[in-house]
Amino acid sequence: MTTAPPTLLVLDADPPPRLGRLTGRARIVHTDADGLAARLPDADVLLVWDFTSTAVRDAWPGEGARPRWVHTASAGVDHLMCPQLVQSDTVVTNARGVFDQPIAEYVAALVLAMAKDLPRTVRLQQQREWRHRESRRVAGTRACVVGSGPIGRAVVRLLKALGITTALVGRTPRTGVHGPDELDRLLSRADWVICAAPLTEQTRGMFDARRFGVMQPSACFVNVGRGPLVDEEALADALAKRWIAGAALDVFAHEPLPADSPLWRVRDLIVSPHMSGDTIGWRDELGAQFVDLYERWAAGRPLLNVVDKQRGYVPGH
Amino acid sequence: MTTAPPTLLVLDADPPPRLGRLTGRARIVHTDADGLAARLPDADVLLVWDFTSTAVRDAWPGEGARPRWVHTASAGVDHLMCPQLVQSDTVVTNARGVFDQPIAEYVAALVLAMAKDLPRTVRLQQQREWRHRESRRVAGTRACVVGSGPIGRAVVRLLKALGITTALVGRTPRTGVHGPDELDRLLSRADWVICAAPLTEQTRGMFDARRFGVMQPSACFVNVGRGPLVDEEALADALAKRWIAGAALDVFAHEPLPADSPLWRVRDLIVSPHMSGDTIGWRDELGAQFVDLYERWAAGRPLLNVVDKQRGYVPGH
Repeated sequence: MTTAPPTLLVLDADPPPRLGRLTGRARIVHTDADGLAARLPDADVLLVWDFTSTAVRDAWPGEGARPRWVHTASAGVDHLMCPQLVQSDTVVTNARGVFDQPIAEYVAALVLAMAKDLPRTVRLQQQREWRHRESRRVAGTRACVVGSGPIGRAVVRLLKALGITTALVGRTPRTGVHGPDELDRLLSRADWVICAAPLTEQTRGMFDARRFGVMQPSACFVNVGRGPLVDEEALADALAKRWIAGAALDVFAHEPLPADSPLWRVRDLIVSPHMSGDTIGWRDELGAQFVDLYERWAAGRPLLNVVDKQRGYVPGH
Repeated sequence: MTTAPPTLLVLDADPPPRLGRLTGRARIVHTDADGLAARLPDADVLLVWDFTSTAVRDAWPGEGARPRWVHTASAGVDHLMCPQLVQSDTVVTNARGVFDQPIAEYVAALVLAMAKDLPRTVRLQQQREWRHRESRRVAGTRACVVGSGPIGRAVVRLLKALGITTALVGRTPRTGVHGPDELDRLLSRADWVICAAPLTEQTRGMFDARRFGVMQPSACFVNVGRGPLVDEEALADALAKRWIAGAALDVFAHEPLPADSPLWRVRDLIVSPHMSGDTIGWRDELGAQFVDLYERWAAGRPLLNVVDKQRGYVPGH
């Protein structure tokens, strides 16, 4: 007697790599956003490969059965959460771990680039202009890293390796992690403020005009979390008024950032296209991570990277 | 009975900071390049503050007495050495130590910028263009650092802190330092080749077409030593032919780099204006370092940072 394999629904036109390892152990069905609602009731597992899509949040509240497990090939889960999914028995897992080191390196690259005035060097080169400037030494400076998950902790490790004194801020104070009530004090002393927090109802818009006003005029701000953590208009204003010295955004309220967005041309702001975690081979790693999780799930063993759906992230250790 | 204080000749129109501490203990005379030859015979000490000038090399072979001590506010001494100075009894000291950490940070900034494709991000931002790219992870890659003085060693420390496996190459093999005969083998395996060597007759032009040909197509090259260490035309050619993937030059055979130099527009080459060591406060540090050395000299204690004039650098420990 054979049992039919579980149905694995994959949200994406492009097939993820490594799923070949599941041959015979999963009936793999691909769908785009438009087809998702119709296929959800027949799926045992949903793999959200296109993590930029909000299709899950839109389709989930509909009629019929729902997958028992949803995995997203991303660190953040804000794009798929809706009250019906939060209240359901469905387990949600994420790509915890894959992005830690790449994003930490990206943050280090941005901090050093701002310290050494590298974007201006690139622009001066285009103009064939030799203009010597003094730059900043990062050793001995102070960073405040907001978001105490594995990405924030990897950022702390790498900035410390550069000789930067770091403070980590999370929702729950614990050893090595400051609580939210210490945030403003830490922001007021930081040379570098790094946002690597998950997007939740508590964190939405947390970097607003008041918080930029608390920072030092020499401070630089980096966002590698999610766009809506930052009031983009307030940031542009803080840069224009020289409340802070510089900023780098890799994530935005609207992605791709529209060509007519004023953010492209804000002075001392680096705009990058949500690429901080995406090093060569990342799709392979994400595929392999999902296959590993699928094998655990199929064998009835406990899943890893299980999201606390109320909080909106995988709770720390 | 009082003795007249020694005459300290300073080569620069701009007065260096911190010399006020020598009030009453030195007769300080400033000169520009044109006045140097006439004033050399009356100087006990020469402070080469304008380290971009070749005036010392030009004026030294002239007539008359010569200072007993020459200090240059730079790490390299190539700009002032001439056979007559090498053969004289004059002691030459340099600014060893001041630039180590700043240059190491600058190299880390360049390596990370190239790994994360940051120069292109800056250019795409100017065009308001959202173009996601995969970038490189630096942890686990390999660097070959050429030049085993304090700058090269600081570069090694910082690249190691980023998770990069590093090999250091110097003139004299010793613990932790590979000799010149291992250079080609190490170049052929390196993801990052960093030149932090002094300019001597042995090192001039060492990075030539053959050496770029030995490197991997994915390798990136950085020069923070001296311009003439590199055959600039061969580098431009190696980049054009994709023998190597990228490069960054902070030093050039002719500085400032002329506006009509083809180097400004070489694809995948970052051009910066000899600024790697110059962090905010560097002039103060250089001034304080000279004053400390002057106090040792005036007290008859041995000087530090004494250059081996034959070799052209301060020998390592």
